[in-house]
Amino acid sequence: MIIVVKNDCEKSQLDNLVDWIKELGLDVHTSRGHHATVLGLVGDTTKVDIDLIATLDIVEKVQKVSEPFKNANRKFHPEDTIVDVAGNKIGGEYFQVIAGPCSVESESQIIEVANAVKAKGATLLRGGAFKPRTSPYAFQGMGVKGLELLLKAKAETGLPIVTELMSEKHIDDFKDVDVVQIGARNMQNFDLLKEVGKMGKPILLKRGLANTLQELLMSAEYIMSEGATEVILCERGIRTFEPTTRNTLDLSAVPVLKNMTHLPIVIDPSHATGLSKLVEPMSLASVGAGADGLIIEVHNNPQKALCDGAQSLTPDQFGTVMSKVNKMLDIVGKKYN
Amino acid sequence: MIIVVKNDCEKSQLDNLVDWIKELGLDVHTSRGHHATVLGLVGDTTKVDIDLIATLDIVEKVQKVSEPFKNANRKFHPEDTIVDVAGNKIGGEYFQVIAGPCSVESESQIIEVANAVKAKGATLLRGGAFKPRTSPYAFQGMGVKGLELLLKAKAETGLPIVTELMSEKHIDDFKDVDVVQIGARNMQNFDLLKEVGKMGKPILLKRGLANTLQELLMSAEYIMSEGATEVILCERGIRTFEPTTRNTLDLSAVPVLKNMTHLPIVIDPSHATGLSKLVEPMSLASVGAGADGLIIEVHNNPQKALCDGAQSLTPDQFGTVMSKVNKMLDIVGKKYN
Amino acid sequence: MIIVVKNDCEKSQLDNLVDWIKELGLDVHTSRGHHATVLGLVGDTTKVDIDLIATLDIVEKVQKVSEPFKNANRKFHPEDTIVDVAGNKIGGEYFQVIAGPCSVESESQIIEVANAVKAKGATLLRGGAFKPRTSPYAFQGMGVKGLELLLKAKAETGLPIVTELMSEKHIDDFKDVDVVQIGARNMQNFDLLKEVGKMGKPILLKRGLANTLQELLMSAEYIMSEGATEVILCERGIRTFEPTTRNTLDLSAVPVLKNMTHLPIVIDPSHATGLSKLVEPMSLASVGAGADGLIIEVHNNPQKALCDGAQSLTPDQFGTVMSKVNKMLDIVGKKYN
Amino acid sequence: MIIVVKNDCEKSQLDNLVDWIKELGLDVHTSRGHHATVLGLVGDTTKVDIDLIATLDIVEKVQKVSEPFKNANRKFHPEDTIVDVAGNKIGGEYFQVIAGPCSVESESQIIEVANAVKAKGATLLRGGAFKPRTSPYAFQGMGVKGLELLLKAKAETGLPIVTELMSEKHIDDFKDVDVVQIGARNMQNFDLLKEVGKMGKPILLKRGLANTLQELLMSAEYIMSEGATEVILCERGIRTFEPTTRNTLDLSAVPVLKNMTHLPIVIDPSHATGLSKLVEPMSLASVGAGADGLIIEVHNNPQKALCDGAQSLTPDQFGTVMSKVNKMLDIVGKKYN
Repeated sequence: MIIVVKNDCEKSQLDNLVDWIKELGLDVHTSRGHHATVLGLVGDTTKVDIDLIATLDIVEKVQKVSEPFKNANRKFHPEDTIVDVAGNKIGGEYFQVIAGPCSVESESQIIEVANAVKAKGATLLRGGAFKPRTSPYAFQGMGVKGLELLLKAKAETGLPIVTELMSEKHIDDFKDVDVVQIGARNMQNFDLLKEVGKMGKPILLKRGLANTLQELLMSAEYIMSEGATEVILCERGIRTFEPTTRNTLDLSAVPVLKNMTHLPIVIDPSHATGLSKLVEPMSLASVGAGADGLIIEVHNNPQKALCDGAQSLTPDQFGTVMSKVNKMLDIVGKKYN
Repeated sequence: MIIVVKNDCEKSQLDNLVDWIKELGLDVHTSRGHHATVLGLVGDTTKVDIDLIATLDIVEKVQKVSEPFKNANRKFHPEDTIVDVAGNKIGGEYFQVIAGPCSVESESQIIEVANAVKAKGATLLRGGAFKPRTSPYAFQGMGVKGLELLLKAKAETGLPIVTELMSEKHIDDFKDVDVVQIGARNMQNFDLLKEVGKMGKPILLKRGLANTLQELLMSAEYIMSEGATEVILCERGIRTFEPTTRNTLDLSAVPVLKNMTHLPIVIDPSHATGLSKLVEPMSLASVGAGADGLIIEVHNNPQKALCDGAQSLTPDQFGTVMSKVNKMLDIVGKKYN
Repeated sequence: MIIVVKNDCEKSQLDNLVDWIKELGLDVHTSRGHHATVLGLVGDTTKVDIDLIATLDIVEKVQKVSEPFKNANRKFHPEDTIVDVAGNKIGGEYFQVIAGPCSVESESQIIEVANAVKAKGATLLRGGAFKPRTSPYAFQGMGVKGLELLLKAKAETGLPIVTELMSEKHIDDFKDVDVVQIGARNMQNFDLLKEVGKMGKPILLKRGLANTLQELLMSAEYIMSEGATEVILCERGIRTFEPTTRNTLDLSAVPVLKNMTHLPIVIDPSHATGLSKLVEPMSLASVGAGADGLIIEVHNNPQKALCDGAQSLTPDQFGTVMSKVNKMLDIVGKKYN
Repeated sequence: MIIVVKNDCEKSQLDNLVDWIKELGLDVHTSRGHHATVLGLVGDTTKVDIDLIATLDIVEKVQKVSEPFKNANRKFHPEDTIVDVAGNKIGGEYFQVIAGPCSVESESQIIEVANAVKAKGATLLRGGAFKPRTSPYAFQGMGVKGLELLLKAKAETGLPIVTELMSEKHIDDFKDVDVVQIGARNMQNFDLLKEVGKMGKPILLKRGLANTLQELLMSAEYIMSEGATEVILCERGIRTFEPTTRNTLDLSAVPVLKNMTHLPIVIDPSHATGLSKLVEPMSLASVGAGADGLIIEVHNNPQKALCDGAQSLTPDQFGTVMSKVNKMLDIVGKKYN
């Protein structure tokens, strides 16, 4: 950590600061310039409250040299983490496609969609049993019953399942789920992060709508600090001023995260854009950016004549996306299993 | 709800859409224009999935005419809600100042700060026992022990206490807390919102870093849909591209919320700006904007010679702010109790 | 245009509004609902001041049904515009790569880079003669001398040139430039837009850092309203809260713009990210998203041992990007000329 | 300037970097830590390309210690600049209110509004002759004729005038204008900034919709580098994700700018919010935040029965705002002249 101190401060103030840092068990290297004095802090700076120091009158700026995350940090774990979900590998050179409906609605629906996406090449099944809804009056998902139907679809198709957990009180209900999803709105629900870190399962962690990539990794760090090693990061759009898409998909996040962390990164083009027409181009863009997988909403709606423009793809549209995605994998050095 | 349908759609598609809406129990008024046809939906449109309709190929746009929140809506509750916290009224013409340290650190600290802020005019005491921290390695608060110390400070000074709840599992521990705070990061932790709505206590709900004012009211609606009537909204800064302040304090939120809802609105200038120098001007600005109260961080740090520029104010600085705030109240038609 | 009027307004106010609209030469269709009355305006609504109406007390909301741009609108021009720059076609199924240094620095530099990028497959040459710099003390470009050197490089290599115009007073100096670039900071310099619209040349228009896609098209409309037909749109990153990249590249803009307009869209991954390491993945992502071209910074710096991580690519790094980009074109149905 | 170099770089790379910096005429102080080496650059670092260095592979981070603006910097000019516009002082303890219509529409209109706002206490007159409009089809202002009408209103009322210049080619037309306004969209039209810097007049510079405060000061620096000393900064809202107001008024900008610069700062609540109902609360908030003045839209519309909710205030509404603003000035230590 570097602290830049103004040269017009009184010597006693500077001495106070240096003494206070040394009391924290750190060494301080001082280098005095024309306009400012730079203090280099050496030792375990995780205990230092950077915000506190930044606001001292005599301090111009404070800068962290080392990132505040460890388990998720590529510097301390240079090899890619490859998450293995029932034989489906995600990360490194391995790529997977997770597909399924937004919500589990009925046994026939989830089994029909599961069979359809499997036929088109999906390797994991998604489906919401507990749904985070902005309105308390909107459908909140089928809950535990929805989990049971997902497990039936898994039994029928062999596809491992990915579904969202919203509250610590349902952790036991998720014991047969293959990948536990933490939604964007819960990315900084720190108590929940700690609990899922103890489940011994792969966790798919979605980036919050206004969270930085470092904050995403700090949330992964919460999970990993409880023992988990298999965290899959997911970019699903951030909030900006642009109104034509629901959110703005930040695909630069893929190569940036690849540099910062060894964890795999998947992209959710369906939620990011909110528009089914954009799922194909943004899926191909995600592969180009180097993503380790995709999460795509596919429905099998009897009212599909009505809904053909909705956020979800039909199985046939999904098949077209898969076909183009598969052609691209070789160019970017990726493969299934 | 208004649906604008493109005129180049096939008649069967339009008929399908109209039939589907009628099946939801709604009336449809159709008015055909040169470029588009407008469907006016009459009835209880809360069941209609606006996102689904918006993505139909034949649909140009969908627009809600009535807001999706009811209990929090000024239209259905024109009078200001006045929250009474042990005789301290917030809302309408009543204004209060909540002050105290970021974290409870020790019995002597919290009691000393409580006495100091009371002497300067604060009417409620704040202090964090459970702390939401970005890093799992940072101090997470004193927890239940911190709550006990807050209650001691309350017994000593008579100031009601405001403190943050982060997890459903601690609800019972908060039975003697006067105002339960939901932090910005948990604004859309819907399971937690439902639970606090059953506590029978005033809830202080902070706006998320990237949440719209309508989303804030939808989260208030979650709390109120469980029976709560006393929700205090809190603006604490939103995330933008400007780096000089921690967040950007959105003071227009005050008059906009006053128009949308009957609930009181308080401002947290300490967290919004992250800089103690900005607390005085932004406190005065908040009063000018029409806020019903302020939440201000005040510490009583033995290292105050060192920390005089930190986010928190010293009791003396807080006294200066209070003195100017009090002079302004008359101009905006506000008063204590 | 749709105007939603509150039902609690007085009849005289509603009548005033309807009369005022009719005086503008428009027809008004009124449909009265339970909570609101909807006015459908038919006729040339471009004269109607939507902001004014939106702020009337009796008005709930106003909504445009037709977009306010015409020449750039795909609805009125369904075929893709293909811009032909000295035989290099951009748009439709045609794809081009514009490459070159950030600034023209010397004759040897620009000719060396031009030869290098041509050898690797670039089809147009970029290079800044007039440089928009945040600081008045920074290098402002070689100016007219830089234009002369670009023309020498064109004579030497045959590559058409793309370079930025910053002021109306230099329009005559650009008479031999092939594509005139308008930078992000001048996207809403409306006087400049009108002047370049009269030049009879292809214009490359960069999206402003905080401009919506509709605003980008309105600026294209300014250019086209003066007679220009060949406008190339360019996405180069928008400003968000994420600090790891200089800006956030909004690749959803590609398919969204393709739907709104017939104009071609190119991507500038170098400026958007500010990091050379991200140019390859974001170039591939751009092709996946359906872009009609790329603008890539390439330098040939004698200090390249020092600068190998800079925003610009070396010719060899550029060659690697080109090789992967070219493999992808077939999958997305694109080709050179 | 501080450069943090990774410790895993090769010695030759570090030596190259140090040599290159020394060639720029700077001294380098090296301090080697466990994880990184810190280079402190001493001398005139304005010539150093910080972006270039930041992207070197061996560099972890670069940090400027001194700000890149000089003339506008409070460090080098600790006293508040007080701009005197025909005897009306802005800055320091002096406060002024600029009021008038959005656009000049006719002689009778501008004179009537000028008389009305003067009667209510406005001390300068605003009015647009050249209007920056998003659409080429919208009213572009009366142009030179509008300037003439403003001068008539000035002759009639004695109020100095403030009006926007959009293009270098109209500079001569502005010779009798008292304060030349540069609009938000031209904040980084650098050629225009240089030209107005030579006019010898006070310049009112509006912050761009997505520009940081440092960028605003760099644009002021462009103007001042040409000799101007009287620049008035103006905050008029920034672009965020919140849809209820046209922009988000960033009032923290006032105390932050007061710390960074000696230049006066005024607030435009009319454009920032786009809603006349918000002008009063946000005007009072601006005074609370410490602003040196306000710019408020006031109209005198014959259709005011229709338009009572528009962005502009009526003269009577303006009078109410003025009365409350004036009561607040004493609390914040401000006065007229």
